[in-house]
Amino acid sequence: MATETDSESLFKLKLRRIIFGTDTPAGRFFDISLIVCIILSVMLVFLDTVAHIHQQYGEIIIVLEWCFTIIFTLEYLLRLYCSAKPLEYAKSFYGVVDLLSVLPTYLALVFPGANFTMVIRVLRLFRIFRVFKLLRYLSEGNLLLRAMMQSSRKVFIFFFSVSLIVVVLSSIMYVVEGPNNGFSSIPKSIYWTIVTITTVGYGDITPGTNLGQAIAAFTMLLGYSIIAIPTGILTAEISQEIGKHKDLRRCSNCLKVGHETNALYCDKCGSELEADI
Amino acid sequence: MATETDSESLFKLKLRRIIFGTDTPAGRFFDISLIVCIILSVMLVFLDTVAHIHQQYGEIIIVLEWCFTIIFTLEYLLRLYCSAKPLEYAKSFYGVVDLLSVLPTYLALVFPGANFTMVIRVLRLFRIFRVFKLLRYLSEGNLLLRAMMQSSRKVFIFFFSVSLIVVVLSSIMYVVEGPNNGFSSIPKSIYWTIVTITTVGYGDITPGTNLGQAIAAFTMLLGYSIIAIPTGILTAEISQEIGKHKDLRRCSNCLKVGHETNALYCDKCGSELEADI
Amino acid sequence: MATETDSESLFKLKLRRIIFGTDTPAGRFFDISLIVCIILSVMLVFLDTVAHIHQQYGEIIIVLEWCFTIIFTLEYLLRLYCSAKPLEYAKSFYGVVDLLSVLPTYLALVFPGANFTMVIRVLRLFRIFRVFKLLRYLSEGNLLLRAMMQSSRKVFIFFFSVSLIVVVLSSIMYVVEGPNNGFSSIPKSIYWTIVTITTVGYGDITPGTNLGQAIAAFTMLLGYSIIAIPTGILTAEISQEIGKHKDLRRCSNCLKVGHETNALYCDKCGSELEADI
Amino acid sequence: MATETDSESLFKLKLRRIIFGTDTPAGRFFDISLIVCIILSVMLVFLDTVAHIHQQYGEIIIVLEWCFTIIFTLEYLLRLYCSAKPLEYAKSFYGVVDLLSVLPTYLALVFPGANFTMVIRVLRLFRIFRVFKLLRYLSEGNLLLRAMMQSSRKVFIFFFSVSLIVVVLSSIMYVVEGPNNGFSSIPKSIYWTIVTITTVGYGDITPGTNLGQAIAAFTMLLGYSIIAIPTGILTAEISQEIGKHKDLRRCSNCLKVGHETNALYCDKCGSELEADI
Repeated sequence: MATETDSESLFKLKLRRIIFGTDTPAGRFFDISLIVCIILSVMLVFLDTVAHIHQQYGEIIIVLEWCFTIIFTLEYLLRLYCSAKPLEYAKSFYGVVDLLSVLPTYLALVFPGANFTMVIRVLRLFRIFRVFKLLRYLSEGNLLLRAMMQSSRKVFIFFFSVSLIVVVLSSIMYVVEGPNNGFSSIPKSIYWTIVTITTVGYGDITPGTNLGQAIAAFTMLLGYSIIAIPTGILTAEISQEIGKHKDLRRCSNCLKVGHETNALYCDKCGSELEADI
Repeated sequence: MATETDSESLFKLKLRRIIFGTDTPAGRFFDISLIVCIILSVMLVFLDTVAHIHQQYGEIIIVLEWCFTIIFTLEYLLRLYCSAKPLEYAKSFYGVVDLLSVLPTYLALVFPGANFTMVIRVLRLFRIFRVFKLLRYLSEGNLLLRAMMQSSRKVFIFFFSVSLIVVVLSSIMYVVEGPNNGFSSIPKSIYWTIVTITTVGYGDITPGTNLGQAIAAFTMLLGYSIIAIPTGILTAEISQEIGKHKDLRRCSNCLKVGHETNALYCDKCGSELEADI
Repeated sequence: MATETDSESLFKLKLRRIIFGTDTPAGRFFDISLIVCIILSVMLVFLDTVAHIHQQYGEIIIVLEWCFTIIFTLEYLLRLYCSAKPLEYAKSFYGVVDLLSVLPTYLALVFPGANFTMVIRVLRLFRIFRVFKLLRYLSEGNLLLRAMMQSSRKVFIFFFSVSLIVVVLSSIMYVVEGPNNGFSSIPKSIYWTIVTITTVGYGDITPGTNLGQAIAAFTMLLGYSIIAIPTGILTAEISQEIGKHKDLRRCSNCLKVGHETNALYCDKCGSELEADI
Repeated sequence: MATETDSESLFKLKLRRIIFGTDTPAGRFFDISLIVCIILSVMLVFLDTVAHIHQQYGEIIIVLEWCFTIIFTLEYLLRLYCSAKPLEYAKSFYGVVDLLSVLPTYLALVFPGANFTMVIRVLRLFRIFRVFKLLRYLSEGNLLLRAMMQSSRKVFIFFFSVSLIVVVLSSIMYVVEGPNNGFSSIPKSIYWTIVTITTVGYGDITPGTNLGQAIAAFTMLLGYSIIAIPTGILTAEISQEIGKHKDLRRCSNCLKVGHETNALYCDKCGSELEADI
């Protein structure tokens, strides 16, 4: 009996290494097939929303959709089974995402009939949550994330100042242009200001009066120049992050830090640097 | 009698610390409630401009508007009362903003009847001046402000050169396209050039002739590339500001901070700096 | 007789110092009044193109226009008179600009009658050449200009590569979308590609087919990301230019260069730096 | 007989130096005339697509087109003839481009009659492949290319994260706006999201509902701020590439170049560097 449990736990361990790990050939194969399945299933959801594809290939899509749902259900059950702490996995971010990505298809069985109503449409699209499963494979973005974290406070102050400017400009434009030119309310006017200050410029609402066009021109020039601020902040932080990665070795002779990555000798005093990074 | 004045002045002092200061729990609570009130009251003004909200909830909005006005009036009077120099506060930037943020509601009482005319509409919107009261809490933006100050001269020269280019391009486009394609006057042509050179691109005025489209393409490429200039200026300045802040060593002799990262000696007095970072 | 010539040449010298120089109070006053005249006269030309202003104030504008023309004519003659080498001045860039800025008004006298024809319209607008006279006061932009010069080779290669991409994308879009969706010829398709790749996005020509929209999305993402290249080049150059300006002093003890601008002591060896920059 | 072969091979060698090399006056002349021919022939293809030019000058264009085709055919044959390894040249990138740039004109002879059908139109436009022949002269872009290579991994992670955001935002907008406002399918919704997030903003599809406009505003602000990330990455890399190139000292011991600006000792072998820059 004990042996059976042992062999079972050994099997569990092996499976866990394949499913959660990436250091075995089988684990890598599992990951890659999963990525392909996720991308294909998300594309399927997208194509299904195109009217003429839905009409022509609707039935094939339903079949494929069920295949992917079964694959992801199996994956979810396997993860639950071989996880060391199943409950903790189920409550983790990835656990919830994994569940949410299979639920919609089953729920669509429970609430049939009401075809293409809002509820079903949203339910079906919940399947794009599968795309979040790809986050698992994005661990290399640490440098960028760290640079963003460190600049987040400055960027927040920047956006706070910009939102003050947006509020004031929106109110002015609402008074100047008024409802006749599409500025029917201040929330709509705020929408216009953001469209303009970010240099998107849809053109669905445009100023009609001379004064309005002058204020619009000022808004554009403002948006055109203040983009330099977040860019400058992030560039400075990324430069430092890249610079830091370069080398943390300290010369034992003159105490200089900040050597080039593959330097063998200190460029200030000429003494040999230690090999470890 | 003296004791009464003393206890009164003690009360004043306590109140002043709550209202103007941020270092007591009561002071922090006062600040946060004020921020919430400001944001809510500004959103109220915005929502009131939406036609169907104004029709349905117009009366509730008026009641809430009076609540906020009374709160801000009380705040203004309290600030006047407990300020050390009331007149100086009243004439300061924040004093004027505080007054302007309550005045419109009272003025709307004085000039009633003429509902939704231009004057009243502007008066009502003056209440968004309350948003400027938030500036009080934006003191952390010093680094960005300093970088902008130091680059302001270069950025000014940049905008001056750009405006020369805009003037010349606008005149050329006015001659090439003419009033038939929407370039009805040079001021309108300037508006188009700014829309194009900032890469906003509404599309309300677009070149119709082949030559006009060629000049427009040139304008776009110009705008697309010269944005690099203010970005470059600001990035360089921000990098330096951040870099300066990084080395936190203080010279033990002349107390200077802000040395270069790998400086060994203070560059102001020449005494040795301590090695630890 | 000799005395007369002497006093005349002395007068000429004095006048030259006022008109060409900026180091005397009279010279500065002359410059500032000239700048004001140039800006006012250019604004006059602009306002004259607005139809309803032309109708209402047309006669006042003509009078003012003649005033400015006489002022600039006098300025041109004075510059010719007191210049050390009048012919060289007349052939210089500023000499030609000064002449071109008065000529149009006189030429409009020679070719009257044909009101509002193309020729006259262009002639009148030649007066905006006056704006180039402001270039005289833009001498501080040297740092920016130097940074642009040094990066010009790299920026040229960048734009050359971009134009190759634009040509290929334009041809593909012409084939995919065809004349029915507004891509009536490759030059028009090039116009669309530039509008898209610079993120201007007028919307006067937009892709209609699915494939066209996919290629358009690719073009946008390309334009959105390659703007980083000229920005990066210029930022690097400006950083260096600003860094260079910092200090050219070399420590006489340890030969280190690159001290901070107001450093008194070398931060590497602690020896005093010489005061001169 | 041997002499004849010798003189022939000498002639081949000379020709190869002119055609493939750029170090002789004749070689430079050959290159420049080729560039002029390529640009002219590409412009010819472009102008031919303009309807009224095709009607008026169609016959002249055909004649010129044949002239260029003969020139490029001769060039191709000459390159084949004097190349050291003709087969390898024919299979190289430039060999294929050279062939593709002459083929379409001959193919148009084989498939006549069906004028202006899709096939012929595409065939004719294949001639723009000639533009790729210019790549041969773009060898100076190495610094930029190296900076892009080194940042490609980070930029890829950035674009991967952005595409996750785009997919989620597109699905939300599809549910919120629906087919009535132009968001007829998720692929179309993705097109809209890319148009918005890159700040292009055509305006062919714009949100109609209040919630949709709020999400759109968020998308714009996101796109407006995340452009800082690739810019920051590339700026940091280009700065380093330019910085490396600046210090031109060569270590007399190990011949390494590319030391840091204020390095005193070679960081590869530890021997002293000469002081002069």
